[in-house]
Amino acid sequence: MSFEKLPFFIELLNDNIENQAALADAVIELEETLSYEQIALLLEAFPIPVRKLIWQLLSQETQQQVFIEMRIESRQIILNASEDEECFPLFEKLDADELLDLSEDLSDRFVDYAVSRMTAKQRALFKKAQEFAFEEVGHWQSFDYIQIPERLKTSGVKKILSNVLPPLSEVFYVTNNDATLIGEVAISQIITIENDTPISSIAESDIEVLLSTENIYSAVEKVIASGKAALPVVDTKGCLTGRLDLQQACRISEQEKDSQLFQSAGLVEEEDLFANVWSSSKNRAIWLGINLITAFLASWFIGLFEGTLQQVVALAVLMPVVASMGGISGSQTLTLIIRGLALGQITDSNKKAIVFKELKVGVINGILWATVIASITYLWFSNPLLSLAIYISILGNIVIASLSGVWVPWLLTKLNIDPALSGSVILTTVTDIFGFITFLGLGALLLT
Amino acid sequence: MSFEKLPFFIELLNDNIENQAALADAVIELEETLSYEQIALLLEAFPIPVRKLIWQLLSQETQQQVFIEMRIESRQIILNASEDEECFPLFEKLDADELLDLSEDLSDRFVDYAVSRMTAKQRALFKKAQEFAFEEVGHWQSFDYIQIPERLKTSGVKKILSNVLPPLSEVFYVTNNDATLIGEVAISQIITIENDTPISSIAESDIEVLLSTENIYSAVEKVIASGKAALPVVDTKGCLTGRLDLQQACRISEQEKDSQLFQSAGLVEEEDLFANVWSSSKNRAIWLGINLITAFLASWFIGLFEGTLQQVVALAVLMPVVASMGGISGSQTLTLIIRGLALGQITDSNKKAIVFKELKVGVINGILWATVIASITYLWFSNPLLSLAIYISILGNIVIASLSGVWVPWLLTKLNIDPALSGSVILTTVTDIFGFITFLGLGALLLT
Repeated sequence: MSFEKLPFFIELLNDNIENQAALADAVIELEETLSYEQIALLLEAFPIPVRKLIWQLLSQETQQQVFIEMRIESRQIILNASEDEECFPLFEKLDADELLDLSEDLSDRFVDYAVSRMTAKQRALFKKAQEFAFEEVGHWQSFDYIQIPERLKTSGVKKILSNVLPPLSEVFYVTNNDATLIGEVAISQIITIENDTPISSIAESDIEVLLSTENIYSAVEKVIASGKAALPVVDTKGCLTGRLDLQQACRISEQEKDSQLFQSAGLVEEEDLFANVWSSSKNRAIWLGINLITAFLASWFIGLFEGTLQQVVALAVLMPVVASMGGISGSQTLTLIIRGLALGQITDSNKKAIVFKELKVGVINGILWATVIASITYLWFSNPLLSLAIYISILGNIVIASLSGVWVPWLLTKLNIDPALSGSVILTTVTDIFGFITFLGLGALLLT
Repeated sequence: MSFEKLPFFIELLNDNIENQAALADAVIELEETLSYEQIALLLEAFPIPVRKLIWQLLSQETQQQVFIEMRIESRQIILNASEDEECFPLFEKLDADELLDLSEDLSDRFVDYAVSRMTAKQRALFKKAQEFAFEEVGHWQSFDYIQIPERLKTSGVKKILSNVLPPLSEVFYVTNNDATLIGEVAISQIITIENDTPISSIAESDIEVLLSTENIYSAVEKVIASGKAALPVVDTKGCLTGRLDLQQACRISEQEKDSQLFQSAGLVEEEDLFANVWSSSKNRAIWLGINLITAFLASWFIGLFEGTLQQVVALAVLMPVVASMGGISGSQTLTLIIRGLALGQITDSNKKAIVFKELKVGVINGILWATVIASITYLWFSNPLLSLAIYISILGNIVIASLSGVWVPWLLTKLNIDPALSGSVILTTVTDIFGFITFLGLGALLLT
């Protein structure tokens, strides 16, 4: 793992907590070895009082860069643990894209301070980017591209290219007087072209571009699929406003997927390992609260069969089996369908075929596991009617779960609700309630 | 979404299924508009007989490239649906890295055929890459880098660079006679250097490299964090063997995360939307089977309290509430800890502090929800002892769940078992059993 250095430094710092001089040495060694991103992750591994100690030993330059790499909650922790005067140096001379990253969750007084401390050029870029919504490319684009006016000749371009270039620069962009994007030229091409060739004559105009108002996640897919180091971003008039490079696209894609994984576990936001216990509790309480409502809803349905349960206690013993088989089946289908919807593979024209296919899989697994479970139940309780009841319930629940795994996300998507988070809750509620009603209802019918 | 074109073509093809000529036209339009990756996704949206129809209308070149882009299961479907003679053209003149992608899951007769149809150079590269395990960089590296012998001067380099360059080429690599990597040179630097400068004098040697035996996921992190278009791969002797570029790294990272999301839902592998129902059923049966064992285990514990349940039916009604609250709490902590372990943030030195923090969060949420649930229970059943029983059970279960969310993945990681898949099963089993025993035990104690 590229994070293999972290445990070593975590141990080193913890060993030297008591000794200020040794700690300072350890921090120096850490600053030389780890990247800013790794230092950000490292800090999360410490409770807040210790974290503050280590933070104060970092150089100001390191502090600023690490601060940018931190996750939102971790930044808040640093800000809350420091006086304002200690924080202000973090906001000196930021670039527009750095502040865009930070401003998401920064209080206004810090944002205003940072804006006032930027260079005029960065301030202008920042204000422009702020016109965009969070999901628009314009909010995420970077401004470190090479822009060449079309009237230049190769010799002039070579002069510009002899300076230090931004990372991931394979091409430079050619624009006209209005900053309209004419095309791009590969830097490697310049090597062999005659010195007095006008740049506009070799610029490739048939290139893929992104719109500054386009959806960022769609744009990220395009950048990654393009095989290029970056794609240029233009506004509605075709003027070059920035670029989205492959590293940025990769990071956004990773964050998106991490976020989905967290949400599927019932965490509203990513948490810091040592976040304040009250903010952690709040983060988790939301999901626990929703879960509580659905759990009591299921309980209410069970409550309708109190009499039956009193007579046939075996029903209470076996209830969890019915509920969980349905829940797992449903979530398997759900995950598959959510992916299919996200990739645009599911439309009105093939929806029926998919439902039919899931129905068949549900029936196969339903019959298989109903048979297994009914057999175990018979071996345990020696009651053929009980086994019959559970056989029908399991089969029915797995089939209903498979079908629900299709219509629940389909419906949510039609209502413009993100199925990744809510789909799972709704699905398990449906399968739980259906399972309980079927099983207890059949129990009442056959056994009382 | 960049997949917005897919629904249009899915509808178009479905509308023209009956008419061979119209279908052929639709396929031509699709080939001109969509990328190979998009076509691969599009094909998954059709049941297999229709998919075969569309597949046969694609040009052979498209077929080969789309085949490479497909996911493993989808490729198997195409191969199973075609005669061997129809399949062989897919394996003509493949590049080494293309066959590496495919060979993962291809039967030997196809792999051998493909190897026999490669150019000698690609065959040698392929055989070399096969010496590596699936998790090693050597298995994934690509060979499309620019390699320049150190004795060349700038003029010679310019000649080489005037050809068409591979994508994501910001630098070229300088090697000596033994192919040992000396360093790299930025292509943009060549523009301004004097023509008779020896390349070895400007090669930057202090660069980050990957080892061909290093773990691929660690390497992928390094590539993405580097901000460069690619990192070179060397063997233990320092000889340049390939490179890992940013697009490839991004794709591997995405696949890894998608795979985690699927596994967390109980799907052993990613499924094709229209996979054969028997293979789908098998894919899901494994998880259902494991779940069954744990469900019956929990049922067995409940069975120990049959007498209690018969006397106090309310316990059976409220059981799901206790179980689900524990399950959700536990999975929230679990997700957080798994991430922390993967990033190397959790070590022996801060483990205790983390457990302590989770304990506090568990107590806060435990008290909050125990109070809410006990109140609702009282409003429902008007039984103070029952409310007390559920209060203690909920509090205890949430606390135990939070602690289990730490020790379960910790233990699994120590045993070298991937906690992402198994952690969830073990955790919910622990919380279910603990919840049932506590609640029913307290019920027996206080109410009978």
